[in-house]
Amino acid sequence: MAGQLSAILNFAPELVTTATLIVDTKGQGFSDITGEAKRFVDECKAGEGVFFVYLRHTSASLVIQENADPDVQTDLTTALNKMAPANAPWVHKVEGPDDMPAHIKAMVTGVSLHIPVNNGELSLGTWQGLYLIEHRTAPHKRELMLQFIGSRRPD
Amino acid sequence: MAGQLSAILNFAPELVTTATLIVDTKGQGFSDITGEAKRFVDECKAGEGVFFVYLRHTSASLVIQENADPDVQTDLTTALNKMAPANAPWVHKVEGPDDMPAHIKAMVTGVSLHIPVNNGELSLGTWQGLYLIEHRTAPHKRELMLQFIGSRRPD
Amino acid sequence: MAGQLSAILNFAPELVTTATLIVDTKGQGFSDITGEAKRFVDECKAGEGVFFVYLRHTSASLVIQENADPDVQTDLTTALNKMAPANAPWVHKVEGPDDMPAHIKAMVTGVSLHIPVNNGELSLGTWQGLYLIEHRTAPHKRELMLQFIGSRRPD
Repeated sequence: MAGQLSAILNFAPELVTTATLIVDTKGQGFSDITGEAKRFVDECKAGEGVFFVYLRHTSASLVIQENADPDVQTDLTTALNKMAPANAPWVHKVEGPDDMPAHIKAMVTGVSLHIPVNNGELSLGTWQGLYLIEHRTAPHKRELMLQFIGSRRPD
Repeated sequence: MAGQLSAILNFAPELVTTATLIVDTKGQGFSDITGEAKRFVDECKAGEGVFFVYLRHTSASLVIQENADPDVQTDLTTALNKMAPANAPWVHKVEGPDDMPAHIKAMVTGVSLHIPVNNGELSLGTWQGLYLIEHRTAPHKRELMLQFIGSRRPD
Repeated sequence: MAGQLSAILNFAPELVTTATLIVDTKGQGFSDITGEAKRFVDECKAGEGVFFVYLRHTSASLVIQENADPDVQTDLTTALNKMAPANAPWVHKVEGPDDMPAHIKAMVTGVSLHIPVNNGELSLGTWQGLYLIEHRTAPHKRELMLQFIGSRRPD
């Protein structure tokens, strides 16, 4: 075995909660939505369980990434631009030259992820933040679904 | 804060449901399985919760992508072929020249995702569809697990 | 419709379980954690539901990949190195030349996934294993959260 497994904690599923989050992006770049996710988990009265986030678009995406040095976001953007260059001969051009690269970037990063909730708090690592990446050049209004399934935090 | 959080809706978890979906692919390309996912959620009598889809293979994958212009799929395929060219000197060649590129494409797109279910319906965005991407050249029979956790829809 | 949907099985959600898994990596490469995941699901007394795994780091990641030929891991590593070469002019260099490529590799592969649990067992495909990929050159201690939501296995 490669790893050490802790004791297992057991809880009863009591809650399924849902909210919508609207994010106004400023064009290509990262929006930190960690604070909104934490606020949702807190307002849910979540105890132990799983937090889910889903983005209802195909030219933006969700990632867990480094939250300390903004240079990391610059380099992540460079890497995504290399995988999906704006000046390649894409067939799908009707929505502008930034649209098809945006779909490719959304495909490799994804629109659906979960984060554990332990003892009423999002169990992110020390250096982890939750980000929406806007891949289009122009600002967009983006809609996300936030959900929690698990136990209720004791009052 | 980057975004506006709606009111939080609360439900009781009542259901864990599971089904198997078999998809016969026609070789490299996209199979739209949005209809199957919707039918599962409907037949589950799902109310509010989370839909999960999982693909039990390593040379095909799952994505949420644009559902309007078929040219998008052409370009997504081009981008994946560039990340994992068939003519590179891969070490793993025993299953044919299309096999190792298929594993790479499956790695960057993934085999596991969730979609929210709200008020008995999959909460996909207007332009989102759920796709299985076959990365092998030949047709394959692919097995998926569909699941729902959440509340039961009122009769 | 592209696929054949089986009958739907219904269960009651009874458990939310959580454990921590610590993995000591040996530097860049794959650690097979399938055994630990199976042991967790077994010790949970999980019946029917969903297993979740989450990695609390931004320079390592999680994938479901081929479990038979080790050459596949060699080629997956080659493909990731091509997407995020160590010798590119990255802006973020303070943590060493292997750090920024590690963040890029973590972004395209992800730190959050689920696997179905059916009849008390992880429903992996025949050729699927669950791997932690270390993207840093040096060995690291990595922390994961394992969770299960679903029904309890009958005694």
